[in-house]
Amino acid sequence: MATPDSRDHTIIQLPEAISINLQAVRIGICGLGTVGSGTFNVLRENAGEIAARAQAPVLVVHVGARRDNPACDLTGVRVSRDIFAVATDPEVDVLVELIGGTTVARELIETAIRAGKHVVTANKALIAEFGNELFALAAEYNVAVRYEAAVAGGIPIIKALREGLAGNRIEWLAGIINGTGNFILSEMRDHGREFADVLAEAQALGYAEADPTFDVEGIDAAHKLVILASLAFGIPLQFSSVYTEGITGVTPQDLRYAEELGYRIKHLGIAKQGDRGVELRVHPTLIPADRLLANVNGVKNAVLVEGSAVGSTLYYGAGAGGKPTASAVVADLVDLARDLSAGQISRVPSLSFCHESLQDLPIVPMAEVETSWYLRMEADDRPGVLSRIATIFSDQGISIEALIQKAPQAGQTRVPLIVLTNRAPQGKVDIAVQQIEELDSVAGRVTRIRVEVLDG
Amino acid sequence: MATPDSRDHTIIQLPEAISINLQAVRIGICGLGTVGSGTFNVLRENAGEIAARAQAPVLVVHVGARRDNPACDLTGVRVSRDIFAVATDPEVDVLVELIGGTTVARELIETAIRAGKHVVTANKALIAEFGNELFALAAEYNVAVRYEAAVAGGIPIIKALREGLAGNRIEWLAGIINGTGNFILSEMRDHGREFADVLAEAQALGYAEADPTFDVEGIDAAHKLVILASLAFGIPLQFSSVYTEGITGVTPQDLRYAEELGYRIKHLGIAKQGDRGVELRVHPTLIPADRLLANVNGVKNAVLVEGSAVGSTLYYGAGAGGKPTASAVVADLVDLARDLSAGQISRVPSLSFCHESLQDLPIVPMAEVETSWYLRMEADDRPGVLSRIATIFSDQGISIEALIQKAPQAGQTRVPLIVLTNRAPQGKVDIAVQQIEELDSVAGRVTRIRVEVLDG
Ligand SMILES: NC(=O)c1ccc[n+]([C@@H]2O[C@H](COP(=O)([O-])OP(=O)(O)OC[C@H]3O[C@@H](n4cnc5c(N)ncnc54)[C@H](OP(=O)(O)O)[C@@H]3O)[C@@H](O)[C@H]2O)c1
Ligand SMILES: NC(=O)c1ccc[n+]([C@@H]2O[C@H](COP(=O)([O-])OP(=O)(O)OC[C@H]3O[C@@H](n4cnc5c(N)ncnc54)[C@H](OP(=O)(O)O)[C@@H]3O)[C@@H](O)[C@H]2O)c1
Repeated sequence: MATPDSRDHTIIQLPEAISINLQAVRIGICGLGTVGSGTFNVLRENAGEIAARAQAPVLVVHVGARRDNPACDLTGVRVSRDIFAVATDPEVDVLVELIGGTTVARELIETAIRAGKHVVTANKALIAEFGNELFALAAEYNVAVRYEAAVAGGIPIIKALREGLAGNRIEWLAGIINGTGNFILSEMRDHGREFADVLAEAQALGYAEADPTFDVEGIDAAHKLVILASLAFGIPLQFSSVYTEGITGVTPQDLRYAEELGYRIKHLGIAKQGDRGVELRVHPTLIPADRLLANVNGVKNAVLVEGSAVGSTLYYGAGAGGKPTASAVVADLVDLARDLSAGQISRVPSLSFCHESLQDLPIVPMAEVETSWYLRMEADDRPGVLSRIATIFSDQGISIEALIQKAPQAGQTRVPLIVLTNRAPQGKVDIAVQQIEELDSVAGRVTRIRVEVLDG
Repeated sequence: MATPDSRDHTIIQLPEAISINLQAVRIGICGLGTVGSGTFNVLRENAGEIAARAQAPVLVVHVGARRDNPACDLTGVRVSRDIFAVATDPEVDVLVELIGGTTVARELIETAIRAGKHVVTANKALIAEFGNELFALAAEYNVAVRYEAAVAGGIPIIKALREGLAGNRIEWLAGIINGTGNFILSEMRDHGREFADVLAEAQALGYAEADPTFDVEGIDAAHKLVILASLAFGIPLQFSSVYTEGITGVTPQDLRYAEELGYRIKHLGIAKQGDRGVELRVHPTLIPADRLLANVNGVKNAVLVEGSAVGSTLYYGAGAGGKPTASAVVADLVDLARDLSAGQISRVPSLSFCHESLQDLPIVPMAEVETSWYLRMEADDRPGVLSRIATIFSDQGISIEALIQKAPQAGQTRVPLIVLTNRAPQGKVDIAVQQIEELDSVAGRVTRIRVEVLDG
C-alpha cells in the first residue's frame, strides 16, 4: 500500500477529514466487460463513500483488458493488454478477476496469489469447480480470495451465510439463482408465451448469453448452488454432485395448471441437510403461490435459508447486471480494505467453516430424494383408466393429494390428467411413471415436476 | 483469552481436527430473559458448528442474572447475581448485554468497555439514544460494540448495510421493523378485526409487551430506523429527529378500502436521502399489494434497501423471539471470535462510516416531506360537495389520482369518500385537510395515511 499522495492518479475527491493518514488500497481489475466496467465505475462514482466506509481510499491503479471499454474513462490508470501484468504488478494489493471462464481466469488468480495478492472474483464457474484448490493455495500464501459476486449478483447472500447466520445449523436453502431462467418462466406464466419465444427475447435484452445453455439447462444455477451448500453445511465444493435439470421442458400449459392448483413454477436450486446426507439439486419446482419466493419475478434472484435458530430468512435483489454485480465486488473490496488498513486480514474462512472442519458428507442419491410431485399425462377419457392409474400409485405406496381431469377438447378422446402426489422418493415415482407410460390408455410421456412447500 | 484446556468448563465437544491450538473466546452474558436464554442455548446447541466457523470455541464462562432461568442449564458456568461482576471479570473477553433499558444497561456496557471488553447487545433503545457516546467510548478503549440483534431480530440487516452494500450510495430504505405492529395489521386485514381486540391477542401470545406503547406507538420502530439510517447515510444517531406515528388509528375499514384500491397498509420505518437532507419517519403506509413488502405478514420483519449500484434488495425473516434474536447475537460473537483469533479486531466502523466522516445532514421537516396520500372522510351525499372538495385540493396544487365514493348505508345521508392524491408535501395536505374538515358537508375528522410506491 502507498499513501495516496505518493501516486499520480489520486484524482478522487475524499472528504477532507478522512484523507489524512490513510493508505490507499490499490486495486487491479482484469476484464473490462459488463462486470469489470461496472466495478470500475462504481469505485469511481462512490469513491468518497467507499473510502469513508473502508477507512482508506480504494483506488484502481491498473486495468488489464484486451481493449478499452468506452464506458470507462481510464485516464490516469495504467492499462495493460496482458492481464498477467496486473497479477504480478508490485503496486497492486488486490486483483479483481472479471474475465470469466475456468482456464485463463484460474491461471490468472493463481499467479496473483503466488505474487501475494488478495483476490476478488465474480466467477462462479471457477469457484464451484476449482475453489477447493484456489482456497488451499490462498491459505498457503496467506491471502484472501473473496467471491460475494459469484452468487446472486448484488445480494449479499454469501456474507449472510458465512457471517450473518454463523450461529445456526443451516437446515436447507432454496434459491432462484439464475435471473435469465426466472425471467423466462415469469414471462411464460404472465403472457402464456412459449419457451423458445421468450428465450429469444431474453437474448435480445442481453439477459441470456448467446449460448444460453448455462442458464436454461441449470448449469449456472448448479455452480451457485454448490457454493451456497458448501457455505451452509461445511462441505467441500463438489460441482459434479449436483443433480441438474433445466427449464426447457416447462410448458405454458404446466404453468397454467400449476396456477389453478395454487402453485407457481420456479427454477430452484435446493440444498438440504438431513440424516442421510446432503441433497443438492436444481430443477423446476412447484411452490405455493403465496410464498415470497413464488412472487420473485423477472430477472430478480432470491434465496430462502432455513436456520436452526433464526428460522426462515430471505434475501432478494438483482442477481445480475454490471452495477448490481459490481456492488458485491466492491463489498468484498471494502471488507479487504478495512482489514488491510488494520494491517491484518481477518480470519473469515473462505467457505465459512475452517478448512480442517470441512466434512465430506454423503450426497443423497436422487432415487432416494423425497418430494411431492406434479404429474401430467394424456389419458383416455373412459371408465377404468383412472382407477388403473390410481392402482399403480398405490402399489408404489404413493398417495395422491389431488387429481384434476380436464374436459376433453372438441373432437379429442384423450384428456389432460394432472396428479399431485404426497411426498414420495423419486425411485418409486420413476417406477410408477414407467408403468403409466406403458398403459395403452395413456399417450406419450408423463410430464413430472417436483413440488416443494418450503415450510420452516 | 485462554486455551480451552486451561479452564475447567470446556465441556463442549468440538470436532477433533479444530480443537488443537485454539484459544477459546470467553463470553459473559448479562440478562437471562427471552434473548439471554436463547443466546445461552444457541451457543450450547451449535457449539461445534460455531467453533468450526469462528475458528475458536465460543464459551459462556460467566452469566449475570438476578435469578436462574429454568430454560438454561448453568452447570459449570459461573453465575453472579450482580451483573456488574461480569463486566469486570478478567476471565471475560466479550460482554453480552441482554437486560434491556437505557439506564443500568448503559452503565453496565460502559463498565465493560472501561474494563477492556468487547460488547455485544440487542438493545435498540440504548443504541438509538446513546450509541454515539458508547461508540466513542469504545473507540477510546479500542474495543468493539456490536448490535446486529438490535434491528430486525435475526435478519442480518446491519451487516448488509454496513458491509454487504458498502459499495453503494444508499438512496432510501423502508422496513417493517416491528413484528407486533405487523402482526396486528395482518390480523386486522385478514379477519376484519378491531385493533384493540388483536392487540389483546398479541399480548396473550407474548408478542407485545404488557405495556405495548413502544410497539403500537412506533417508538420501537423509530429506535430501529434511526440505527438503519445512520448506517445507510453516515449520519450520527439522532432518535429525537424521527417523526413517529403509530398504528392505533388504523381501522379495519381503511384496511379494506386500501385493498379495494390495490394497496396494503403496513407500518413502515422510512429513511430517505435527498437534495434537501434526510427524511426519517415511521408511520402507517399504503403500499401496492404486489410488492414483496406488502406480502410480509404476521410477526415477520423485512427491510427494503435502495442502493445506487445494486438497486433494490430486500431482507426478510423473524424480527423477534429468543432464538431468532440469539442468531444475530451469536453472529456478532462469531465475527469477534474470528477477529480475536487473529489477534486483532477488524476495523469495521460502528456506524459503517468511519467516525470522522459522519455528517450531520439536515433533517427534512415533515411539512416538506412529499408522499401520495390516502384520505378518507364522511361527506354529505348531495350535489356540489365533491366539486367543493376537489377545489380545495386544486387550490393547494394537489392533484387527485383516484376518488371513490361508497354507496350510502341505509338511512344514512353521509357517504365515505376516499381520495388518493398524487405526491404532495404534507404542509399542503395539512391546509387542504383543515379546510375540508371545516366544511359543513363533511363530518368529523379526515383520516389520512401516506402512500408510498417503493419503486427503485
Ligand atoms: N454479467 C453478469 O451479470 C454477471 C453476474 C455475476 C457474475 N458474473 C461473472 O462475472 C465474470 C465476468 O462476466 P461479464 O458478464 O462481465 O463478462 P463479459 O461482459 O463477457 O466480460 C468479460 C471481459 O473479460 C475479457 N476477457 C475474457 N477472456 C479474456 C482473456 N483470456 N484475456 C483477457 N481478457 C479476457 C473480455 O475481453 P474481450 O471483450 O476482449 O473479449 C471482456 O472484457 C464472469 O465470471 C461471470 O460469470 C457476471
Ligand atoms: N425479545 C425479543 O424478541 C427481542 C428482539 C430484539 C431485541 N431485543 C432486546 O433484547 C434485550 C432483552 O430483551 P428480552 O426480550 O430478552 O427481555 P426479558 O425477557 O425481559 O429479559 C431481560 C432480562 O434482563 C434481566 N434484567 C433486567 N433488568 C435488570 C437489572 N437491572 N439487573 C439485572 N438483571 C436485569 C431480567 O431479569 P429479571 O427476570 O430478574 O427481571 C431478565 O432476565 C432488550 O434490549 C430488547 O429490546 C429483544
